[in-house]
Amino acid sequence: MTAVWEERIAEGARAMRSSAIRDLLKLTEQPDMISFAGGLPAPEMFPAEEISDYLERALAEEPVAALQYGPTEGHRPLRELLTVRMAVLGITVPTEQVLVTAGSQQALDLIGRLLIDPGAPVAVESPTYMGALQAWQTLRPHYLTLPIDDDGLQIDALEALLMRGERPRFLYVVSCFQNPTGVTLSAERRRALVELAVRYDLLIVEDDPYGELYYEGSRTQPLAAIDCAMHGSPRQVVYLSTFSKTLTPGLRVGWLSGPPEITTRLALLKQGFDLHTGSLAQIAATRACDDGLLERHVPRLREIYGERRNLMLHTLEELMPAGVRWTRPTGGMFVWLELPAGVNATQLLTKAITRRVAFVPGAPFFPNGGGESTMRLNFSHPSPERIQLGVQRLAAALADV
Amino acid sequence: MTAVWEERIAEGARAMRSSAIRDLLKLTEQPDMISFAGGLPAPEMFPAEEISDYLERALAEEPVAALQYGPTEGHRPLRELLTVRMAVLGITVPTEQVLVTAGSQQALDLIGRLLIDPGAPVAVESPTYMGALQAWQTLRPHYLTLPIDDDGLQIDALEALLMRGERPRFLYVVSCFQNPTGVTLSAERRRALVELAVRYDLLIVEDDPYGELYYEGSRTQPLAAIDCAMHGSPRQVVYLSTFSKTLTPGLRVGWLSGPPEITTRLALLKQGFDLHTGSLAQIAATRACDDGLLERHVPRLREIYGERRNLMLHTLEELMPAGVRWTRPTGGMFVWLELPAGVNATQLLTKAITRRVAFVPGAPFFPNGGGESTMRLNFSHPSPERIQLGVQRLAAALADV
Repeated sequence: MTAVWEERIAEGARAMRSSAIRDLLKLTEQPDMISFAGGLPAPEMFPAEEISDYLERALAEEPVAALQYGPTEGHRPLRELLTVRMAVLGITVPTEQVLVTAGSQQALDLIGRLLIDPGAPVAVESPTYMGALQAWQTLRPHYLTLPIDDDGLQIDALEALLMRGERPRFLYVVSCFQNPTGVTLSAERRRALVELAVRYDLLIVEDDPYGELYYEGSRTQPLAAIDCAMHGSPRQVVYLSTFSKTLTPGLRVGWLSGPPEITTRLALLKQGFDLHTGSLAQIAATRACDDGLLERHVPRLREIYGERRNLMLHTLEELMPAGVRWTRPTGGMFVWLELPAGVNATQLLTKAITRRVAFVPGAPFFPNGGGESTMRLNFSHPSPERIQLGVQRLAAALADV
Repeated sequence: MTAVWEERIAEGARAMRSSAIRDLLKLTEQPDMISFAGGLPAPEMFPAEEISDYLERALAEEPVAALQYGPTEGHRPLRELLTVRMAVLGITVPTEQVLVTAGSQQALDLIGRLLIDPGAPVAVESPTYMGALQAWQTLRPHYLTLPIDDDGLQIDALEALLMRGERPRFLYVVSCFQNPTGVTLSAERRRALVELAVRYDLLIVEDDPYGELYYEGSRTQPLAAIDCAMHGSPRQVVYLSTFSKTLTPGLRVGWLSGPPEITTRLALLKQGFDLHTGSLAQIAATRACDDGLLERHVPRLREIYGERRNLMLHTLEELMPAGVRWTRPTGGMFVWLELPAGVNATQLLTKAITRRVAFVPGAPFFPNGGGESTMRLNFSHPSPERIQLGVQRLAAALADV
C-alpha cells in the first residue's frame, strides 16, 4: 500500500506536515521545563467543584438532555443564555442565529469549509492566530496580509487593499488581546473597520476568546456590537467566542453568531462533521451560566492573570537586553517579543530548551512568511515563581546567541 | 450583503440544502408521534448514575485531565484501553495508531477530508449510511455504488468494478447490522473482501458502531481483525467505532484505528478542526471501560433491544399487507422495508405523519438515486407498546396509499 499511498491523499491534504516547531515543543513537556509556549489557562483556577456539582445534578434531573443525541445547533437553553450574554455586550442576535461549536476551533473550520475555495482571497492580520491558519491549511486560500501595530489591525492598509479591487471572502480578526501579539483594536479603528465593511460589503469574522480577560479599564465593545447597533442584528460580522478561557477548555464548548445566511449553512455543515457538540459539556456550560458562575469566576481570573502579566512585564523590563521590544497587553494571555534584527527565534528556542524554558517562535503566525525574530510568551499558565525564573533563563539563553 | 452572498460560498458548499425529508421529520418531534425515524438508543437504558459517579470522582481526583486542553490523538489512558478492547476482537494495533474522535461522524469527516478530491471515485454500499454521504457532501466524490443482499455487500460486484480498472480512493462499508438495512456481511464474504483488498491494494473504511449489539450468535469478526491476522497490524482497513450505541451518544466519543500513514495524517487534520475531543467526555468513557461497565451494561442492551427487534418483526409479520418485504437483522437498531413497486415511501411518510407515526424513507441512503419504495424503521428507541401501536398505524397508512 505504501507505494501508492500518496496517490490516495486529497490534493489539499498532501502538503500537510507536522511542523518542526511542534516537534521541538514536544520536548517541553518535561516537568522541569518552564513553558511559556502553550495558550493554556491556569489549571489551579478551574472551577472543578462547581462543574462536578452541575454534572451531578444534571445527570439526576435531566439525564436524557445530558446523554442523548442533541440538536446540531446546540442545547436550546444554552443558546438562549448565550443570546442574553451577547445582548449585554450589544450583540443583539436572535437565538436562531446562535450556533454552539466544539470550541472556537471548530467555528474556524466550519467558516473555512463554507467560504474558502483553493486560491480564494482571505484577509488576515499578520501575524495572526496560528490555529486559524491550521484550520484552513487544506483549503489553501490566498492570504492577503494586513500589518498590525499597538492599536491592532491597520485599517488604512485594509482600505487600500479594498480600494485596489481586492474582494476577500472575509477578513479574520482577533479583535481583543490578539493571539499572538496581545494588542487590541482601538475604539476608533473598530468603528472605522465596521464602516469600511459596510461600504465594501466585507464580511468580518471576529474571533473574541479573550475579551472577558481585561486587566485594565473595562470590556471592549466587539465589532459585532457595532454591526448590530447599525443594523439591528448581525449583518457584516460573524462573532466567535468560547468558554475555553473563562470556564475550562476541556469542555470544548464555543459558539458563534452571525447573519442567518451564514449560521443556517454552518449548521448544515456541522451536522455532517460531528452531528452536534457534546451534550454533557453543553449542560455543564448551561448550568454555569445559569448559576452566575462566570460572574464570580472571571473576576478571579482577571486578578490572577493580571498579576502574572504585571510580573512578566516587570521581569522582562528588568532582564531583557537592549534591542528587545515587547507589547504591553491590557488583557488576554500573551506578550509578543521582537528580538534584535538577525536573532532567529527558532534558533533561540533550541538554546532556551537546553536552559529549560520554552516559548513559541513567531514565524508560524505569519501566513506569508517573515517574523523570524519574533516570539510569543504566555503568562496565564505558569506560576509567578516560574514566570520570574523562566524569564531569567530566557535572558541567559539570549546571552548565548 | 445578501446580493453577493452566493459569490462568497465555496464551490463545494453551494449545493448544500436542508432536505425535504429532514423538514418533514421535524414534524415528528411532537409527543403523540411514534417515531421509528431516528437512530437513537433507548434513553431509559442510559447508565446515568454510573457516569455521574465517574465524573464526580474524576473531577476530584484528576481535575486537570478532565478540564484542561488535551492531546489531539486523545486521552492516553483511553487510547490504551481501546487498544486492549480492540485486541480482544483481533484488531492488533499499536496505541499510537488509535485516534479518539468526536463520535464516528467526525471520523467520517476526517477520512473524507484526507482522501476525497472533487470527482474522485469512492466505493459505497447502496444503500449506505446517510450520515457518511452528508459528511462528504461538500467534497463531491464520484460514488461507485455496490449492491447488497441479505449477506451484505456483493463482493462479485466489487471485484468486477476493480477488474474493469476502477480505483476507488477507498471502500466504505458498515460491516455489521448495517445502517440502514440491518444486514451483516457474511463470514465468507468478509474473508473474500479483505483478500480482494490485498490483491488490488484497496483501502477499506470499516464503520462498526453496532457490532456489540448482537441478539443471536456471537460477536462478528471485524474486517480489521482479518486484516490484522494477515499482516500483524492494520494495513488495508481503517476501523471506526464509537461509545454512542454502547454507552451514550451525548458523550460524542468515538475512535478509529488504521495504518500509521493514515492515522498520523488524520491527527494533523483533527488538530485544525477541533484541537481535541472533549476531555470530560473522554474521562467518563475511560472510567467506564476501566470499571467494566460495558461488560455489565451491553448485555442488558442486547436483551432489551433483542426483545424490541422480535416484537417489531412479529408485528410486521402480523400486520403488513402482501407485497411488503423486510430484512431480519440479527443485531443493531434497524429493519429495512421494501414496499410494493409503485408505492413511494416519501408519500407514505406524509400519510403516516397524519396517523402519528414516522420513519425515514429509503431514497436518501442511495447516493446515486433509487430506493423510492424503501424505508427504514428503528426499533431500539420506542417502547414495546409504541412499537406495536406504531406498526398498526403504519399498516393503516399503507392501506391509505
